[in-house]
Amino acid sequence: MMARFGCVLVWLVAVNSAAAFAPTTTQNAARSLALRMTTESAAKDPVKVGVIGCGRIGIVHLGAINKAPGVIPVIVSNPTISKAENAAKTFGVPKFTSDAMEVITDPEVDAVWICSPSQYHADQIKACAANGKHVFCEKPIATDLAETVEAINACNEAGVKLMIGLQRRFDPNFLRVKTAIQNKEVGNTIIIKTCSRDPSPPPYEYVKGGGGIFNDMAVHDLDMTRFLAGEDPIEILAVGSCHIDKSIEDLPGSEAFDTASCIVRYPGGVNAMVDVCRQSSYGYDQRAEVLGTSGMIATDNVYPNTAKIYKKDFTGNADMPFDFFLSRYFEAYVTETEAFCKSLVEDSAVPCTGIDGLVALVMSLAADKSAAEGRWVKFSEIIEQVYCAKPTECSLLANSDMFPEGFKPTKSFDDLGNIVVPDVDKQKKEGSFINKLKQMVGI
Amino acid sequence: MMARFGCVLVWLVAVNSAAAFAPTTTQNAARSLALRMTTESAAKDPVKVGVIGCGRIGIVHLGAINKAPGVIPVIVSNPTISKAENAAKTFGVPKFTSDAMEVITDPEVDAVWICSPSQYHADQIKACAANGKHVFCEKPIATDLAETVEAINACNEAGVKLMIGLQRRFDPNFLRVKTAIQNKEVGNTIIIKTCSRDPSPPPYEYVKGGGGIFNDMAVHDLDMTRFLAGEDPIEILAVGSCHIDKSIEDLPGSEAFDTASCIVRYPGGVNAMVDVCRQSSYGYDQRAEVLGTSGMIATDNVYPNTAKIYKKDFTGNADMPFDFFLSRYFEAYVTETEAFCKSLVEDSAVPCTGIDGLVALVMSLAADKSAAEGRWVKFSEIIEQVYCAKPTECSLLANSDMFPEGFKPTKSFDDLGNIVVPDVDKQKKEGSFINKLKQMVGI
Amino acid sequence: MMARFGCVLVWLVAVNSAAAFAPTTTQNAARSLALRMTTESAAKDPVKVGVIGCGRIGIVHLGAINKAPGVIPVIVSNPTISKAENAAKTFGVPKFTSDAMEVITDPEVDAVWICSPSQYHADQIKACAANGKHVFCEKPIATDLAETVEAINACNEAGVKLMIGLQRRFDPNFLRVKTAIQNKEVGNTIIIKTCSRDPSPPPYEYVKGGGGIFNDMAVHDLDMTRFLAGEDPIEILAVGSCHIDKSIEDLPGSEAFDTASCIVRYPGGVNAMVDVCRQSSYGYDQRAEVLGTSGMIATDNVYPNTAKIYKKDFTGNADMPFDFFLSRYFEAYVTETEAFCKSLVEDSAVPCTGIDGLVALVMSLAADKSAAEGRWVKFSEIIEQVYCAKPTECSLLANSDMFPEGFKPTKSFDDLGNIVVPDVDKQKKEGSFINKLKQMVGI
Amino acid sequence: MMARFGCVLVWLVAVNSAAAFAPTTTQNAARSLALRMTTESAAKDPVKVGVIGCGRIGIVHLGAINKAPGVIPVIVSNPTISKAENAAKTFGVPKFTSDAMEVITDPEVDAVWICSPSQYHADQIKACAANGKHVFCEKPIATDLAETVEAINACNEAGVKLMIGLQRRFDPNFLRVKTAIQNKEVGNTIIIKTCSRDPSPPPYEYVKGGGGIFNDMAVHDLDMTRFLAGEDPIEILAVGSCHIDKSIEDLPGSEAFDTASCIVRYPGGVNAMVDVCRQSSYGYDQRAEVLGTSGMIATDNVYPNTAKIYKKDFTGNADMPFDFFLSRYFEAYVTETEAFCKSLVEDSAVPCTGIDGLVALVMSLAADKSAAEGRWVKFSEIIEQVYCAKPTECSLLANSDMFPEGFKPTKSFDDLGNIVVPDVDKQKKEGSFINKLKQMVGI
Repeated sequence: MMARFGCVLVWLVAVNSAAAFAPTTTQNAARSLALRMTTESAAKDPVKVGVIGCGRIGIVHLGAINKAPGVIPVIVSNPTISKAENAAKTFGVPKFTSDAMEVITDPEVDAVWICSPSQYHADQIKACAANGKHVFCEKPIATDLAETVEAINACNEAGVKLMIGLQRRFDPNFLRVKTAIQNKEVGNTIIIKTCSRDPSPPPYEYVKGGGGIFNDMAVHDLDMTRFLAGEDPIEILAVGSCHIDKSIEDLPGSEAFDTASCIVRYPGGVNAMVDVCRQSSYGYDQRAEVLGTSGMIATDNVYPNTAKIYKKDFTGNADMPFDFFLSRYFEAYVTETEAFCKSLVEDSAVPCTGIDGLVALVMSLAADKSAAEGRWVKFSEIIEQVYCAKPTECSLLANSDMFPEGFKPTKSFDDLGNIVVPDVDKQKKEGSFINKLKQMVGI
Repeated sequence: MMARFGCVLVWLVAVNSAAAFAPTTTQNAARSLALRMTTESAAKDPVKVGVIGCGRIGIVHLGAINKAPGVIPVIVSNPTISKAENAAKTFGVPKFTSDAMEVITDPEVDAVWICSPSQYHADQIKACAANGKHVFCEKPIATDLAETVEAINACNEAGVKLMIGLQRRFDPNFLRVKTAIQNKEVGNTIIIKTCSRDPSPPPYEYVKGGGGIFNDMAVHDLDMTRFLAGEDPIEILAVGSCHIDKSIEDLPGSEAFDTASCIVRYPGGVNAMVDVCRQSSYGYDQRAEVLGTSGMIATDNVYPNTAKIYKKDFTGNADMPFDFFLSRYFEAYVTETEAFCKSLVEDSAVPCTGIDGLVALVMSLAADKSAAEGRWVKFSEIIEQVYCAKPTECSLLANSDMFPEGFKPTKSFDDLGNIVVPDVDKQKKEGSFINKLKQMVGI
Repeated sequence: MMARFGCVLVWLVAVNSAAAFAPTTTQNAARSLALRMTTESAAKDPVKVGVIGCGRIGIVHLGAINKAPGVIPVIVSNPTISKAENAAKTFGVPKFTSDAMEVITDPEVDAVWICSPSQYHADQIKACAANGKHVFCEKPIATDLAETVEAINACNEAGVKLMIGLQRRFDPNFLRVKTAIQNKEVGNTIIIKTCSRDPSPPPYEYVKGGGGIFNDMAVHDLDMTRFLAGEDPIEILAVGSCHIDKSIEDLPGSEAFDTASCIVRYPGGVNAMVDVCRQSSYGYDQRAEVLGTSGMIATDNVYPNTAKIYKKDFTGNADMPFDFFLSRYFEAYVTETEAFCKSLVEDSAVPCTGIDGLVALVMSLAADKSAAEGRWVKFSEIIEQVYCAKPTECSLLANSDMFPEGFKPTKSFDDLGNIVVPDVDKQKKEGSFINKLKQMVGI
Repeated sequence: MMARFGCVLVWLVAVNSAAAFAPTTTQNAARSLALRMTTESAAKDPVKVGVIGCGRIGIVHLGAINKAPGVIPVIVSNPTISKAENAAKTFGVPKFTSDAMEVITDPEVDAVWICSPSQYHADQIKACAANGKHVFCEKPIATDLAETVEAINACNEAGVKLMIGLQRRFDPNFLRVKTAIQNKEVGNTIIIKTCSRDPSPPPYEYVKGGGGIFNDMAVHDLDMTRFLAGEDPIEILAVGSCHIDKSIEDLPGSEAFDTASCIVRYPGGVNAMVDVCRQSSYGYDQRAEVLGTSGMIATDNVYPNTAKIYKKDFTGNADMPFDFFLSRYFEAYVTETEAFCKSLVEDSAVPCTGIDGLVALVMSLAADKSAAEGRWVKFSEIIEQVYCAKPTECSLLANSDMFPEGFKPTKSFDDLGNIVVPDVDKQKKEGSFINKLKQMVGI
């Protein structure tokens, strides 16, 4: 019966949600934030939060939490406890520990930032849900599709907020493109192009078993095309190749690629073209371009200053662009944490949901399949394999002959209700989840 | 027997030929040309040439011919004879006529510039060949694949030079990218991207029967990817859509598209991504980007001056970019004519051959098929349909059951010898064509 | 006797001091700061500070203080006490008051940030000195030359640190130019150019009695030329005019100008060209350019993102540049406060001294005189008028006939010891001031 | 009596004349010229011209003459006759000679292009006037002020046109700034800034006796400020220094400078700031910036293509800017010759007059004096020294004690009628010069 349960729930696409955060006047958006924070009342009881992971990204989020009004960090954890201690001292956090579970079970804690390595994400999300804590989780939710659905459903059933860190959506440059589209500054979208190039390829060990270039790299671009398109995509064509470190050529599937191109088809004839490469000798290259019926908008890379230098041999930028994600997206990481803090303090919908993380994963899996099979792959081919006996007991069914009785596959992103429980913010809109469930089952 | 004849001829890819024209020092290339011309001896007998068509493009070529050392225009034609007369007076050309055949048959004329509408190209090329005149022909050679092969073979059998006007190859911006690749300034090529957008869509009447967006528009980009790749492509994936003038949506095939994206696969894993659109509200948009193993090079659009303006509402370029092909590629049109003049005066190989025109057509036809069938299409699928009973009697065989006895299809661009006779410049390298023919047929 | 006292003290030019703060690797300077702060030990007793003024600029500094390791804000003041209360709540500051003197006399407070209107600066600095508090003071120190010297000397005699907020020195763009000069990236400096244009002119009431365009506006540029030159200037030629609001034309001296140009001569033939205007319709315009013997470096204005937009009527930046000093120099304000926090925590020399503020004032006064008299004015003409009966009892002597007995005018910036007591950071280098004094007076 | 003669003649400022040539639609100006030429009737008898000097600049002008409709080159000269012969052959010119006088006296010739070294200019202009030939002369008219006036008057008395080659006025970039000013695109002019830097300093031998940095270099910038201001300047402040080749420091006056800065005052409070340097390691640097009451317009240097390159160590322009005047101003040289051809064919006023050349010289002489004396110098101080006993018998009177009887100095540029006869284009407006003369002398 639980298998049927999902089918009747309705999910409304939250693609545009991050944009709700976009400042109405784009001028000085980033700058005005700090100022704005001081003028808003901070009258309510503060939200108390914990942070798992005191590596570089954890520290960035901790710094942002520390500045956010109405939010107080009360505990941090890190396996190497000296890092936790140092972070606690720096940001005036009263408690620190080497055990992530102490953060998750701390009775004081309302919300947890999961900044641990990817393989721990799903279990920690589930543990947070079990302990009634809201969750901010760095991308990805999980490395596996079924587990991703389970983790999302765990939060949704528990009624806790889940925000996924797709930080590019909060970058002022990409956000500017989104705003232009929303405001019809370039008319109706015709084509979307994004380009992502890492400064240098990861070591063989990272690539091997890493899930391939679409899952560990292009997924950000695929999500960005969906964020900019403002609707769910239909199908994908992907192709990959190897140019730099030939030792990876023997790895399976898209792990053998260091370069890839995709075309993603969206409704209404909008196509998105994505190209990624694991090496750009000139630094981290992250750009987007959107052509619309009345203009084009395009972003460039970000440089630490505006200085240009003119020498005997060249004329150009005095410095190289920001060299990797931490410096390039520093503001974005801060902004996304501020956004989640805001939704905690105001109990408003999170700007980047579990569904956003789920769809991004489906897109990268479809790209993988397309490159392997040399053909257009519909996203429905991926999601219709997911079978949830219960919201948190999901698996992939590859062979239709073995489908369990009553299995009704999810046919598209419009139809995720078959597998995903509405999240807490939807529930509020639609009335209590329990009430809804009662209604459905006729109690 | 003639069907066998083609098989033994060998064709060497001429992809890079235009680059041989590239100046060794790129600084001031365009500027130095006029100066260089004055210092070179012009001792030989001048080459006498005629121009068919005195429209805008004919006038541009005539101006270039007039400046080229060692070349003298002796006759021009135009159906509206007043245009021919005016051009003759302006450039000091002694004869003018309303009849193109008078140019082609003029005994004084050594070479003919065909600047007439596309539908006349093939017949005029053949007529030139029949009269022993060298030919410069604006793209395309013909609107049909078989006729294209016939026209090329007509020139090659007659031993006259045939140069095709793929003018973007002579644009200083695209040429700079080519030079960077040749000089390994960005290492080995990883990915090639080009983008082409016309300022505004052509009228319905032009689109209808025009052969579709790949044939009448993307063909220039497809050729550019091949020019930059420096080798022949393998297969293509194309997709199109309609965004601007919905009235064309009912037209057949790719005539219904005003927007299209392609991925072209080249040997060694290099992919080229092309996107085109029939409307860019901000003017003519023509850019290329190449990522290599040690860097990237990218071109921008061309503006009439460097002035930037800063106003209350915007800060940016004081003027719009050049607004269409004639202004944008003015220098390129001049340079390609100068290049052909040079090859006439020096009797050297032309930088842009009939094969270049043929391959461009095959690429656009394959794109058409890919978009129609939603799959990767190999270029061999297109060229293996061409059957030449004689070099100048060609047709397309769509159904393999009906293949004529002894038909041996051309399998790839490396194997064009099945259908195309070597051109006059190849013949010189490989010994006289007649000698070769004698050798082959055992005379 | 005290009048003689100043003469024997020696002052070493501190022009370059802010550059000591410049990061060794400029890449990611701004971004790395927050991260760096977390890895440094914060073991010492925290420095406790107060902030006078909770307007926009006070809030920016308070935010920066709040993030700085080892520094704790304990009290804030503002005449409108609700503003002080709100700031205190936002940043978790325990005490707030409407009375600045409560901040200055608070026994807990080690250092005071003076963010009040300019007319209160001198008295508040002196009060801080009298109470043994270190001082950060927004530019200017005082509106009058004699009072400026008195305020500086008050701090120096009291042995408290005094840092002046010349925030442009901390802007990443100007700082990048400084770094280029220090690292000889463009060789030896030949010429320095700066340009400053406010978005719109201040009201007549502000201009009237405001001290004129050189004192209230160009002073930042004059200081920047000195910062970049790395040495003290010799003389100035200035000229002004009125273009925008003709009502100010009747005001005296340089209050009648909304536009001005200066040439400042530095030793070794380096000239600096400065132009300022009270209105630039396209936003806040703040640029610098330095030509050296082996290259040039130039900065541009700062935009909130990298997006460029291409429309029917223009192609350029998607947004306007930051529109005034608070958004444009937001990072600089934060950085200068961080720098002062660092010098407090580490008891190191402040990067922007009272002398820097004094020289900037002298330069603007000389510009005023030059524009009025239509001639080159030496800076010594200004400073040699200052007579200090005691370090904190100074006045201007315009008529040499009336010079007090024993008056020995300061002849140049190398010779400020006649009027200015060494600051606390110099004193540490040179031994205790008291010891020195004893030595001097033979005790 | 002749001394009085000049006083009653009136000269109207011709500052804006070149702008009359500015295309009304700036888009594609340069490109459209060649096309436009073909559509205009060329019905009149052609103007026959000769060229003196077949060096690089002569060749550029010859190429332009050759393309201009209605103008035919009939003879060229060069001391090394082989150069003349080669040029004649290249451009199809029937006659060539080693003797400039053969060009000047050739009965076929209507107009002469003087492209010889500067020291021959004055004499050749006078010889042209004596032979009734119109004159195009590369800047300068003469190296001496009195001789400049004589040469101008020689042409004006003879009723032949005299055009001076101040080619920057025809550069599309500077011209765009002029157009912006004329069209009030940036409102009313507030400040004008130009910057000129040569790629490398000339040898000691060139500098010695060359007249100093203001006369041989800054003169172009000074003229440009006047062209952009659209009115005559009042006074100048200049200062120079030596940074690169210290051997020139011992040379007299401004010959000792390799760097200089000027401020030029124009009516209405507009100031122009000029800086020049004899060395810019990054190539030829030629920029202008104009701030107006409603915006700013600024030009950049010109690059041979739009390509940008991104490498491990830098990101910027793929190529260096055009490296010196011949490549940088190639189009400008062509355009100015086309403009003179047009004024010959149409018998219309020349866009760049002898007066323009004269004023430029006065400005540079005043700069020289200002730098030497360290003060503002009025331009009237220079021009009031010129005394013409007859229009073509002029000298400089330095000592007022020795002024000839009846000498009435010219007090400003509005008052040049004291020394300069109206030119032929003015005469046509004002009726015949001879008639006017008759009227004046009462015949």
